[in-house]
Amino acid sequence: MVTAAQLLRRIGGLPVKVGVAGGTGYVGAELVRLLAEHPHVRLHAVTSGGSIGKCVNEHYPYIPKYLNLRFVDIDDPVLLECDVVIFSTPLGTIMRYARSFLERGIRVIDLSPDFSLENQEVWKSRFALEHSSPELIPSTIFGLPEINRAAIKKALLLNSPSSYSTAIILGVLPLLAPGKMKEESLVADIVVGMTAHGRVMSHTAMFAEHSDTMQAFDVDFPLARTETESVISRIHGKRIELTCIPHSAPLITGLHATLYLKVDPEIDLFKLYKEFYRKEIFVEVLPAGCVPETRNVRGSNYCKIAPHRQKDGAAVILVALDNLIKGAAGQAIQNLNIMFGLNESDGLHAIDTDPKGHTA
Amino acid sequence: MVTAAQLLRRIGGLPVKVGVAGGTGYVGAELVRLLAEHPHVRLHAVTSGGSIGKCVNEHYPYIPKYLNLRFVDIDDPVLLECDVVIFSTPLGTIMRYARSFLERGIRVIDLSPDFSLENQEVWKSRFALEHSSPELIPSTIFGLPEINRAAIKKALLLNSPSSYSTAIILGVLPLLAPGKMKEESLVADIVVGMTAHGRVMSHTAMFAEHSDTMQAFDVDFPLARTETESVISRIHGKRIELTCIPHSAPLITGLHATLYLKVDPEIDLFKLYKEFYRKEIFVEVLPAGCVPETRNVRGSNYCKIAPHRQKDGAAVILVALDNLIKGAAGQAIQNLNIMFGLNESDGLHAIDTDPKGHTA
Amino acid sequence: MVTAAQLLRRIGGLPVKVGVAGGTGYVGAELVRLLAEHPHVRLHAVTSGGSIGKCVNEHYPYIPKYLNLRFVDIDDPVLLECDVVIFSTPLGTIMRYARSFLERGIRVIDLSPDFSLENQEVWKSRFALEHSSPELIPSTIFGLPEINRAAIKKALLLNSPSSYSTAIILGVLPLLAPGKMKEESLVADIVVGMTAHGRVMSHTAMFAEHSDTMQAFDVDFPLARTETESVISRIHGKRIELTCIPHSAPLITGLHATLYLKVDPEIDLFKLYKEFYRKEIFVEVLPAGCVPETRNVRGSNYCKIAPHRQKDGAAVILVALDNLIKGAAGQAIQNLNIMFGLNESDGLHAIDTDPKGHTA
Amino acid sequence: MVTAAQLLRRIGGLPVKVGVAGGTGYVGAELVRLLAEHPHVRLHAVTSGGSIGKCVNEHYPYIPKYLNLRFVDIDDPVLLECDVVIFSTPLGTIMRYARSFLERGIRVIDLSPDFSLENQEVWKSRFALEHSSPELIPSTIFGLPEINRAAIKKALLLNSPSSYSTAIILGVLPLLAPGKMKEESLVADIVVGMTAHGRVMSHTAMFAEHSDTMQAFDVDFPLARTETESVISRIHGKRIELTCIPHSAPLITGLHATLYLKVDPEIDLFKLYKEFYRKEIFVEVLPAGCVPETRNVRGSNYCKIAPHRQKDGAAVILVALDNLIKGAAGQAIQNLNIMFGLNESDGLHAIDTDPKGHTA
Repeated sequence: MVTAAQLLRRIGGLPVKVGVAGGTGYVGAELVRLLAEHPHVRLHAVTSGGSIGKCVNEHYPYIPKYLNLRFVDIDDPVLLECDVVIFSTPLGTIMRYARSFLERGIRVIDLSPDFSLENQEVWKSRFALEHSSPELIPSTIFGLPEINRAAIKKALLLNSPSSYSTAIILGVLPLLAPGKMKEESLVADIVVGMTAHGRVMSHTAMFAEHSDTMQAFDVDFPLARTETESVISRIHGKRIELTCIPHSAPLITGLHATLYLKVDPEIDLFKLYKEFYRKEIFVEVLPAGCVPETRNVRGSNYCKIAPHRQKDGAAVILVALDNLIKGAAGQAIQNLNIMFGLNESDGLHAIDTDPKGHTA
Repeated sequence: MVTAAQLLRRIGGLPVKVGVAGGTGYVGAELVRLLAEHPHVRLHAVTSGGSIGKCVNEHYPYIPKYLNLRFVDIDDPVLLECDVVIFSTPLGTIMRYARSFLERGIRVIDLSPDFSLENQEVWKSRFALEHSSPELIPSTIFGLPEINRAAIKKALLLNSPSSYSTAIILGVLPLLAPGKMKEESLVADIVVGMTAHGRVMSHTAMFAEHSDTMQAFDVDFPLARTETESVISRIHGKRIELTCIPHSAPLITGLHATLYLKVDPEIDLFKLYKEFYRKEIFVEVLPAGCVPETRNVRGSNYCKIAPHRQKDGAAVILVALDNLIKGAAGQAIQNLNIMFGLNESDGLHAIDTDPKGHTA
Repeated sequence: MVTAAQLLRRIGGLPVKVGVAGGTGYVGAELVRLLAEHPHVRLHAVTSGGSIGKCVNEHYPYIPKYLNLRFVDIDDPVLLECDVVIFSTPLGTIMRYARSFLERGIRVIDLSPDFSLENQEVWKSRFALEHSSPELIPSTIFGLPEINRAAIKKALLLNSPSSYSTAIILGVLPLLAPGKMKEESLVADIVVGMTAHGRVMSHTAMFAEHSDTMQAFDVDFPLARTETESVISRIHGKRIELTCIPHSAPLITGLHATLYLKVDPEIDLFKLYKEFYRKEIFVEVLPAGCVPETRNVRGSNYCKIAPHRQKDGAAVILVALDNLIKGAAGQAIQNLNIMFGLNESDGLHAIDTDPKGHTA
Repeated sequence: MVTAAQLLRRIGGLPVKVGVAGGTGYVGAELVRLLAEHPHVRLHAVTSGGSIGKCVNEHYPYIPKYLNLRFVDIDDPVLLECDVVIFSTPLGTIMRYARSFLERGIRVIDLSPDFSLENQEVWKSRFALEHSSPELIPSTIFGLPEINRAAIKKALLLNSPSSYSTAIILGVLPLLAPGKMKEESLVADIVVGMTAHGRVMSHTAMFAEHSDTMQAFDVDFPLARTETESVISRIHGKRIELTCIPHSAPLITGLHATLYLKVDPEIDLFKLYKEFYRKEIFVEVLPAGCVPETRNVRGSNYCKIAPHRQKDGAAVILVALDNLIKGAAGQAIQNLNIMFGLNESDGLHAIDTDPKGHTA
């Protein structure tokens, strides 16, 4: 699934040429920050709707002196020189561009909702929009590495799941085998930081109005519910009814999910989860009794999970990840690494093995 | 249930003499702030463990120039001159003092966990402590005005429920009649501000470690679960299994509860709630489609509730209140007002009727 | 300076009829919150550009159930029934309306920059706008009660100074007599909360971009500098060179000023300030050694001041006030109280004397 | 100044063995985070007072799965195997240990106040403590790379300046040549995040009491004043009177300094600063008209500076850095890099040149 040119560059040890479409949003900023230090990637082009021609580090002043890259238009031919383009663009963008990239052998990673739902009827009703490339949907690969590595390796068009879906699926995955859940029903209470709403101005997103306050949103039809319900139901083999309420807290970044479900009381949850995820680099099952904090995954690609059981009551799975990293930019890079035969953790600051010879 | 002296003072229009035990904690501070402006109350004594002799407004610099009141010891006889003493004291305090106040005809309002649980066995196992006045427990009145006004009126010893219990009970109350809930099961996902942990120093309560982060706490045995489960089960007539996870968000104050339950699909939740609470001053059912924000109840005694139903799914009841006010100090004053025949909203800054003659 | 109708109403104990122009901004919200509970005021009309016809408590959900007032257009004749109209409107609004209100005997309080500068040339160059009522400027009264009570009493058109000016003037006032300052030079370092920027959307005002960060703004030509420099120079009798840099911190509300100046080393600053402000209700000189915190003036009309002297160095005056209250809405009401012969602290929750008979 | 063993390891390309004394504080945490990814360093030992035996990543859960390092006691002989030990220990610690390390050829970097002041009389009066190794003070190297690289290269005992000193010195440095300042007087208004107070519990450091508030601290005798005044006066050749007030804002991390001084009006400040710092990796002079924000240096070793001049007034220099990085841990590593002949930016995530061949 690699073009000849891509193959030659890989053999020659040349970096993967990456384009970022939608580089000025919050996810785009994290893509640029991480890709700028990725050892096997060359950030080749970054697009922007409103900042064309500006230096990338004018927009991201915390990326110091990275002077040589300027924002280009999404139609700029420089994008066609890339091996892969990551889209963190608004709804309805990538569906218009994917085909032309794919036809040139350029692989495409979608972080938008465009290729997030297989069921086109639901997609239409959710987004009140006609999909312009419905024929690409069936071959879109679901980019959650922990359940789909083999397919991701060969993916040409990949949809990286939302932070909500990532947290819920990783949180419930070890329980999806038959006989573990006592009811096909799951409550997912989600709290996210304000970057989860995108870089879209509104009065309620202003510091003066969102500090020191909490509220639910999208109560009646949360974006993540349909996508997630369909994925976990398929893995489980039976429909699971998912109830999912997202909330905004005064956090810059971070996603905390609390999953409530009924589980066979005989199961040792901690042991099950520890074993299930023992080989995963970016999923960490916390020591028994611990709870995950979003600050401990801030800026990192880790997803921290702690399964609990309330005395005489329901199972409660706690999940924390950074909505912009494991929930978006980091996971896109993890997928990119798999797609291009790199180490899965390249450029993601994982310190899971000791590169300098420490031994236990 | 009013002593002769109390009666005479009331007839003469004299203010109720109120003592606050535990005046330097976060709840104590709000009691002092509100009672200082209460039109029919005289703040007669405020106790403190560590600040005896200091002026009250040295400790509360936002209460300007209120120079004439100094903190006294909890054993100071000045407390015995009060008509009522409100205890916002640590676990194990009021159970040692209640009897001697009651014997003198001084009414007692408990904001601590001391008289929060009828079942003494559970109490002991929860708090790892022997109760020193178990004989007072049966006659303790549960101080949630919205369900217990008649009893509160005559209460001598009253336990004002925790903010968690208040939110969950008010949130589910309209559904507790037979036939409304489809399962005797309730998930209560709670998020609180940092004042809910009391004025107790810990590394994780420091600004530098609790800003921009979210986490669950008390996952295995949350304080509020037993108390609340027992109250709602009694009202409902059948045991309701409550699962309840509290979380800390970077809020100073505020409690947000999201209640998940299965409800008869025929019920119009909005209409039911609106009708149920139409006469309550301090419970506001939001217009259909709205969600409550904790900032809108900051510093006030209001509890805002919004019932929702997720498309094809569970009922979701959203509740917001100020954990220090409707969840503690304000509710204690609301109870006090009822106990002493005052207007229920006196001193609570309710603007629910138009005192100056506005008309629609 | 009171019309016959106004006089009759005052004699009859009738409330002052107040209009608020610009009722949906942050200052407008505080005006409504405070006026709604003011004992001698009737909030008669609130205008809004974008929310005409909506209930006031839809916009301010923390003002519960105040159902009977709807936003009107600024041209609505109901405003003409008021005794006084307070303008918290954008630049260039009140200068077009003031004359017509004044001609009808309606007094006008300006919280905008329109009547903030006597020098019309500077005004024009600062705001890049032609003033439409320059003839009203000379008779505009400067509404800082602590220096101008007599004139305020009779004011028909009053400009209530900005939060910046209020803090700097009150902070330096006791030193403005000849011989106290050793140099005619003052540095005012100001930090404000985000409400100081108004309810104007921008990326940098978003929670996700203004949390956990600090920055200066308006560095080259801060709004407050000219106005303040001219007032303190006039009082001092000589030109004082003011350097003033405002900064934004992640605060909802609050203004903290640190004033640096050289003062005669013989002066006992604490004693001077204590004596100077001993009769002022809303200026509190802190006990020696203390520093003011903005949280202690949150929501209140108090200005807290602490004069210090650095070892072998400059005098440093610390000032804290709430930019929306003593810096805007509260001060407007304080002025209104003076203008209409009410107690200066009416409706401002001052607890400076003991209304219930406490004695030391 | 390198021992034979150190030299051999460097020749063999072996990593520098680094010990961190005081690894559980906020600076210690950043040292561990940065050193764990440093390409030429091996983190050999981390000490702790209270967590001896615990895994480092139990204390720092955001450093995932770095399982092989456990906290040791500061007297553990493993420290003696290091090439260099960085002390981020409380006052009075390193002065008792420095000698024994130096005698074994182990180089020492001090981040505490122990070796921060040459003048022992002032030191004693500031810290109310007798210095136990006064004889080491004269040979201590002042570790601000931008003014002292040559000496740092050979340093055996180095004191890395505080964040306050770093910001003030870097901010004023280009003006310290004769003839540029018009008065030997400098006001430094400093705002810091809460990590600047160390990991020390107090009520005022709690989230519930330090959110949404601002205040000054150490007003009368700020720690940084003496050290900084002495350094800038020495460079300038004349005593500069420094007035310096630190403030706490609700920031986790970050230091913002606003420097006020009188400067020859002929000087083009922007040009002067740009030229002065053109070769410095970690000092960035912002484009004219810009202001630095602390969020843009969060977690990085950059110091951002913007010189301004207020219309008809004083020069104002704005400085932002991360108090834990360029103000502590990062600067220590920058010093370490210089001391051991590494690239000055190794391990500090500087992206100032294009390692992958980008061209303009």
